[in-house]
Amino acid sequence: MTTDPRQWLPAAGVDWTDEADVVVSRSIDRSGWPPSGVPAAVVFPRDAADVRRTLRLANDARTPVVPRGAGTSLTGASTAGTGTVVLDLGRMNRIVALSPEDATVVVEPGVITADVDRAAAGHGLRYAPDPASHEISTIGGNIATNAGGLRCAKYGVTRDSVLGLDVVLADGRQISTGATTLKSVSGYDLTGLFVGSEGTLGVVVRATLRLRPAPLATTTIAASFADIATAAAASVAVTGARVQPVIAELLDEATLTAIDAAQGTSLRSRGAALLILQTEGAGEADLVAAVLREPAVAVEVSTDGTDLLAARRLALPSIERLGRPLIEDIAVPRSRLADAVLQIAAIAERHDVPICTLAHAGDGNLHPIIVTADDDLARRTAGDIFELALKLGGTLTGEHGIGTLKRPWLGRELGPAAHALQRQLKDLFDPYGILNPGKAI
Amino acid sequence: MTTDPRQWLPAAGVDWTDEADVVVSRSIDRSGWPPSGVPAAVVFPRDAADVRRTLRLANDARTPVVPRGAGTSLTGASTAGTGTVVLDLGRMNRIVALSPEDATVVVEPGVITADVDRAAAGHGLRYAPDPASHEISTIGGNIATNAGGLRCAKYGVTRDSVLGLDVVLADGRQISTGATTLKSVSGYDLTGLFVGSEGTLGVVVRATLRLRPAPLATTTIAASFADIATAAAASVAVTGARVQPVIAELLDEATLTAIDAAQGTSLRSRGAALLILQTEGAGEADLVAAVLREPAVAVEVSTDGTDLLAARRLALPSIERLGRPLIEDIAVPRSRLADAVLQIAAIAERHDVPICTLAHAGDGNLHPIIVTADDDLARRTAGDIFELALKLGGTLTGEHGIGTLKRPWLGRELGPAAHALQRQLKDLFDPYGILNPGKAI
Repeated sequence: MTTDPRQWLPAAGVDWTDEADVVVSRSIDRSGWPPSGVPAAVVFPRDAADVRRTLRLANDARTPVVPRGAGTSLTGASTAGTGTVVLDLGRMNRIVALSPEDATVVVEPGVITADVDRAAAGHGLRYAPDPASHEISTIGGNIATNAGGLRCAKYGVTRDSVLGLDVVLADGRQISTGATTLKSVSGYDLTGLFVGSEGTLGVVVRATLRLRPAPLATTTIAASFADIATAAAASVAVTGARVQPVIAELLDEATLTAIDAAQGTSLRSRGAALLILQTEGAGEADLVAAVLREPAVAVEVSTDGTDLLAARRLALPSIERLGRPLIEDIAVPRSRLADAVLQIAAIAERHDVPICTLAHAGDGNLHPIIVTADDDLARRTAGDIFELALKLGGTLTGEHGIGTLKRPWLGRELGPAAHALQRQLKDLFDPYGILNPGKAI
Repeated sequence: MTTDPRQWLPAAGVDWTDEADVVVSRSIDRSGWPPSGVPAAVVFPRDAADVRRTLRLANDARTPVVPRGAGTSLTGASTAGTGTVVLDLGRMNRIVALSPEDATVVVEPGVITADVDRAAAGHGLRYAPDPASHEISTIGGNIATNAGGLRCAKYGVTRDSVLGLDVVLADGRQISTGATTLKSVSGYDLTGLFVGSEGTLGVVVRATLRLRPAPLATTTIAASFADIATAAAASVAVTGARVQPVIAELLDEATLTAIDAAQGTSLRSRGAALLILQTEGAGEADLVAAVLREPAVAVEVSTDGTDLLAARRLALPSIERLGRPLIEDIAVPRSRLADAVLQIAAIAERHDVPICTLAHAGDGNLHPIIVTADDDLARRTAGDIFELALKLGGTLTGEHGIGTLKRPWLGRELGPAAHALQRQLKDLFDPYGILNPGKAI
């Protein structure tokens, strides 16, 4: 039998509450996944010592703890059920130090991602990862899911920008991983192990992030195509022309139709697929435009990024007007991208449910957005999409993580031996299974 | 008591030998570190099944196994002592598949690194990591040490180019990690855990690597400076000008003097420090040259890479004429680079031993090369350099790994809790400690 956490929480010396409205607000995330009940309490640590004391006592009492940033998870990773304690890291939101010479920044987990980028911009630098949620999600949450974003095509995912971490383990001990240097191979890569572990191995209380030079100039190119296959092939041809775009976004016919309906635009009439690319190097945009001109039906070039990316930005708000969106997230080898979009359209037809597909074409990462209020239909449709991802040699998740939503499928992707090893890793780091139970693996 | 491996090796159905000259040749690497004795045998697997059978029997017999690529380790990671079985992966050297559309290549561990790059070049692509040993070292060895190279400044280390691995575990089971896609967050990042683990967690039998577009044009810039501090500051100023050089190599006074003596050049007379940068984007070279012109005493620009990088390439052969080189490998925050070079010069003076320092300035990764045939002096001097790295907030190794050489120092860098966790990881993956014992952690 477990103790009611409210018995040991006073001894932790941290701010906490069991007020119903606060507790309920911290039990859900943006996945729409319903928690099993109501958490016992929400803790608001102000520093690493608060986290250490809370975890030590929770571990002793075998209380499940759900670490939480801004709760923007799309997979149920931040949902918290009956009897849990939510560790809300929102108050640990300081940018501790930024070194322009080292091109590094040290942050607490509750810092909003876009704020890190803005702080870097003051020094001619940027924090490259830009998940769509970057104005509302936290660095801690981005690290927990190894978040991606539009600029991944060139700069990689969150993992590629994390140099080192301070982590509190399940039993309250604190360790440092990685280094403050841009390279290090001292010992096993624990940093990479914590990144993407969805709060199931430890709680990040500080991170050293790598910054990159901000680009001198950016050019955006939008090209319409008669069909998705031609658009996907054109995207691959850009790499063949030896250019690495920063952004390569592909919008399918259903998405263009949704945008036109909501915004009064006429994107669909130009072609059934829209590819939006952004380049940074001087001269690269000309090369890209030259590659696209023949296969495309229309090409626009802008040195002001805002205009041509508007369609991409407006996609989700437009789709939301059609009904409740379930945003999926699979990745396939880039050569299977068109195949994937077409087969997703076939799944939509089979289930008679609208699916709009956006893709980070540079990485083969697709976001099929299933539009329905019917949970069961959504889940069955998503299941077919996961099946498709594995059939095409792809993965269940490119950048959103496993959460609760994809957990039943994970074993299929990993295989029994690797899955067993992952569970053993979890047991090693968290013997009593108190950290975000039921998530990630 | 352990069994003589020659008793169980016939049952493994693999090519093996205990011929003295072969066994001795596989007992050493390029570190100069003496093995404890002579291995019992060398196994030459031809495929993953050979590796699985060998490890299963070795695990049952508790025989220590030393996986080996080309034996180019500089830290003793490939040395094999009394009673060990060396697993020489040199015959597993096929490039299995290269997909230009996916920008990926699947390779066996024994492939020479430069051969992967050459195969990619045929498709306008490149394999970015380029350790100095790339013409003689293998991909398997590069993965084992998370090898770096000159182009890390822009493209990162080996880890940043490894998408997925097939790994045989200590007990002979085989797992797949990561994905064949450019992004995936399904489960914990086992790929990153195996990269840099120096063959102590498992044996890589296949790797899926990421390729990048080959650059359209490359420009090299060489700038001489009156002193190392000005050169290091100029290197940082380049990033401040929003340019990410591909290569940023810094050569100190002792190195320039050695090159001049060996090659009849007059580099030292131009300045006490030489910075060689390479850029890829059009226009970037002009920006870099503009930044360097004021602080430098001389700046040369070449659109033909070979000429200006010659000094860097000739550095090690020139230093070797002074005596036996021990190539060290520390990294410090970039802002401490000049400090590090100057304090290394002070260490050289204190021990009365020549030290020539080369640095990958973009990453703050220094290679102090200690020139002496006196093992004890070399070790004491290296000890002071490790101490310095930790004092400056740096790391014991940027890209060569821990091996046997730096093992006594590792606990200092990791701290007791993280070090203990690393040992527990090792025990989880390899309960009987058969994989490359005495290395890495």
